[in-house]
Amino acid sequence: MASAIASLPAQRGGGDGAAGASRPNIISIVTDDQARWSVGAYGNQEARTPHIDGLARDGARFDNAFVPTPVCSPSRAAFLTGRYGTQVGITDWISPAEAGRGLGLPASAITWPEVLKREGYATALVGKWHLGEDPAFHPHRRGFDHFFGFLGGGNRPMNPTLEDNGRPRSLQGSLPDLLVDDAIGFVERHRDRPFAVLLHFRAPHLPYGPVPYEDSAPFETLDPTIPDVPGLDRAQVKRWTRDYYASIHSVDRNIGRLLQAVDTLGLTARTVVLFTSDHGYMIGHHGIHTKGNGVWVAGGVTGPKRPNMFDTALRVPLVVRWPGVVRGGTVIAEPVTALDTFPSVLGMLGIPVPVDAAQQGADFSPLLRGQQVAWRDAVFGQYDLHHSGLAFMRMIRTAQWKLVRHHMADGLDELYDLQQDPDELRNLYGSEAARPVRDQLQMRLTDWQRSIDDPLLARLQR
Amino acid sequence: MASAIASLPAQRGGGDGAAGASRPNIISIVTDDQARWSVGAYGNQEARTPHIDGLARDGARFDNAFVPTPVCSPSRAAFLTGRYGTQVGITDWISPAEAGRGLGLPASAITWPEVLKREGYATALVGKWHLGEDPAFHPHRRGFDHFFGFLGGGNRPMNPTLEDNGRPRSLQGSLPDLLVDDAIGFVERHRDRPFAVLLHFRAPHLPYGPVPYEDSAPFETLDPTIPDVPGLDRAQVKRWTRDYYASIHSVDRNIGRLLQAVDTLGLTARTVVLFTSDHGYMIGHHGIHTKGNGVWVAGGVTGPKRPNMFDTALRVPLVVRWPGVVRGGTVIAEPVTALDTFPSVLGMLGIPVPVDAAQQGADFSPLLRGQQVAWRDAVFGQYDLHHSGLAFMRMIRTAQWKLVRHHMADGLDELYDLQQDPDELRNLYGSEAARPVRDQLQMRLTDWQRSIDDPLLARLQR
Repeated sequence: MASAIASLPAQRGGGDGAAGASRPNIISIVTDDQARWSVGAYGNQEARTPHIDGLARDGARFDNAFVPTPVCSPSRAAFLTGRYGTQVGITDWISPAEAGRGLGLPASAITWPEVLKREGYATALVGKWHLGEDPAFHPHRRGFDHFFGFLGGGNRPMNPTLEDNGRPRSLQGSLPDLLVDDAIGFVERHRDRPFAVLLHFRAPHLPYGPVPYEDSAPFETLDPTIPDVPGLDRAQVKRWTRDYYASIHSVDRNIGRLLQAVDTLGLTARTVVLFTSDHGYMIGHHGIHTKGNGVWVAGGVTGPKRPNMFDTALRVPLVVRWPGVVRGGTVIAEPVTALDTFPSVLGMLGIPVPVDAAQQGADFSPLLRGQQVAWRDAVFGQYDLHHSGLAFMRMIRTAQWKLVRHHMADGLDELYDLQQDPDELRNLYGSEAARPVRDQLQMRLTDWQRSIDDPLLARLQR
Repeated sequence: MASAIASLPAQRGGGDGAAGASRPNIISIVTDDQARWSVGAYGNQEARTPHIDGLARDGARFDNAFVPTPVCSPSRAAFLTGRYGTQVGITDWISPAEAGRGLGLPASAITWPEVLKREGYATALVGKWHLGEDPAFHPHRRGFDHFFGFLGGGNRPMNPTLEDNGRPRSLQGSLPDLLVDDAIGFVERHRDRPFAVLLHFRAPHLPYGPVPYEDSAPFETLDPTIPDVPGLDRAQVKRWTRDYYASIHSVDRNIGRLLQAVDTLGLTARTVVLFTSDHGYMIGHHGIHTKGNGVWVAGGVTGPKRPNMFDTALRVPLVVRWPGVVRGGTVIAEPVTALDTFPSVLGMLGIPVPVDAAQQGADFSPLLRGQQVAWRDAVFGQYDLHHSGLAFMRMIRTAQWKLVRHHMADGLDELYDLQQDPDELRNLYGSEAARPVRDQLQMRLTDWQRSIDDPLLARLQR
């Protein structure tokens, strides 16, 4: 890896609506709570993700893809705007109470669909928003021509009520199927012009079901591999894992339906498909259930929060199929984060990054093109947990090392040698031998905090 | 109970050194981590505390005694100075790192032994200090003529190294025995003048042993009653409970030795004996092991912190034997806190509270005398956990209700109806029916925070 760089904005030409007519479409798929470890293309032999795996086979798989914050709203904000949660005022998932008090993604944070819309794209958000419920934050005002989904964090997996371009509709059927029905309709209606469909599944978030029988059937008799952590209720963890895989199957099956429709319409060759998740997940890993705000389940009993930035919580699958550009089966080792989506999507579509976008990402489209570019050697994380627990975490991760600081609390800081200890089981923070590495990482972490005007710095200095 | 009052300072006469010659002695005993539920006099049929029980039989037992903060240092500060932890800058136990950075009980916070010393008492601290390790904070400079013990939070239960009036000494034997040997020596040397011995055991703090065989023997075959909490490793919890009782026995046996020596010296009639603990304790209660900063052990596996202000963590035994004044077997229902020790000890000894003592307690000596006095109807708690976890808790507790706020975090606030639910199992914070009570308690809690200049108020307003 080469020296770290702050960003690599696409500066290619093009960019007016007329030129846009020949631009590729993009279908961007984000699942909810789907860990990297749950995907076949990343080595899972028990989950069934043939369509996601197919995208990786026909395109590129990023082996080191991270989110900056291991819960929904701040990660989604990063994905859409290239900005860290603290930069947009969203530091934990937006609770109903916070949404009611008017918390949402501020208009000052430009989304990449806004840029695409300006460039003549037909834009759709199908599924979950979770970035504010006031009218000012509505997807229609944040770059999306079309919105079919829900504004809050969740919905029923079966027979949900969804908002269809401003009007609530009670529907029958499974949520992933309903969303993909709508996405297919949008693609059909816009087959003749550049379009961007952002398909944001709620699955495989809790509750894992109900799902259609065809999605649960393959796992009925599965005895899944689960983490070997003392005290886990192994039967419960296996049940959760089976149900998680079933929910993932319902997503994957629907991705297959969508890709089939795109193919039938003859659009595959000029449509970029990006697949990722909003953060990682744990079902018993490290004794935890769920994500960065996971609860302690070692012992089989639900305990308090265990705020964490384990790789299991931060790593996501990221697969890009870019016909005619990316060679099938490409594997990209460079570390990327959800913040990179903004410049990278624009980079793939040949649209310059607007000068006023304060986005923090780097354009990974040259990596997809197989070009040699200077690339960062570290990714950063941040999480101010304040729902049902309290933590102020900051993280830096290189290929070999991860430093996690738990601010305002002491005795919780973490340092892992990922080369020797990829599962992050041996905390070296207190190790004398590792002190030079720790101090150097700490300096870089503080520099990064300064560079993003991290409010925590001022808070700690008081 | 009558209306709440901020304090009830003793204003009786006396107060010069000469008058002091006829004053009663005081022996004040504080154990470490000893829950109210662990004492025979409070109904425990399995622990063996005959000498503590004897003090209650010959004196008064407080049925509603609390500490303001459920960990060591702030509770000890409150006990000695009548001030809340936030008022003296000690909000969690003083860690070795904090002690190294110069944290300790500031000289501006007057201790009641300082007042007694000024009044002509010979004063001793025997045992644990844990209020700073810099020379400026040394017990010799905070009111104690004699110090035999240790400055930090802990020591070995067997063969410890102790500081004996400024010089380290390596000793052989059990820590409680060594401490009581020294206390007896001090009493013998000062039999002819008013003395104050503060005996601060480290037991029954973890590690519970080793203890002399005579202390563990009574529990070898005990199958102790333990909390009925799902997922506990019952065998482990029973082992801990047996070892805890053994450690408590080592304390009680030594209290017996000390009382015997006092009796032999003919001092019983003119010696007040106060027994209490620095806070409560849990061995599996609510799924937690230890205290306000306890860890989650439901499931039999040690999990993250579970910051709490359960009664099990806040309630302490408090027993006062005051010969010639308190009738044996007296039970006092009024709620008292460790902050009350300052004015109450002075009240019992006939010494006025100094005008410059900013102590926050109320003098409970009139209650011991059997007088009718206006008394508070609520006690308050505070705890800023910052070691190995993070929480900013504030509490108000009346006879019927307890409100616990977890500041900076949401979803953790607690409200219990102690009349219907003495074990605090049903959190009513979100209950519509309980909202009027909740709001009223919140107002009183905020008023109290203002009255003590709680730094958290300003922090939250920013």
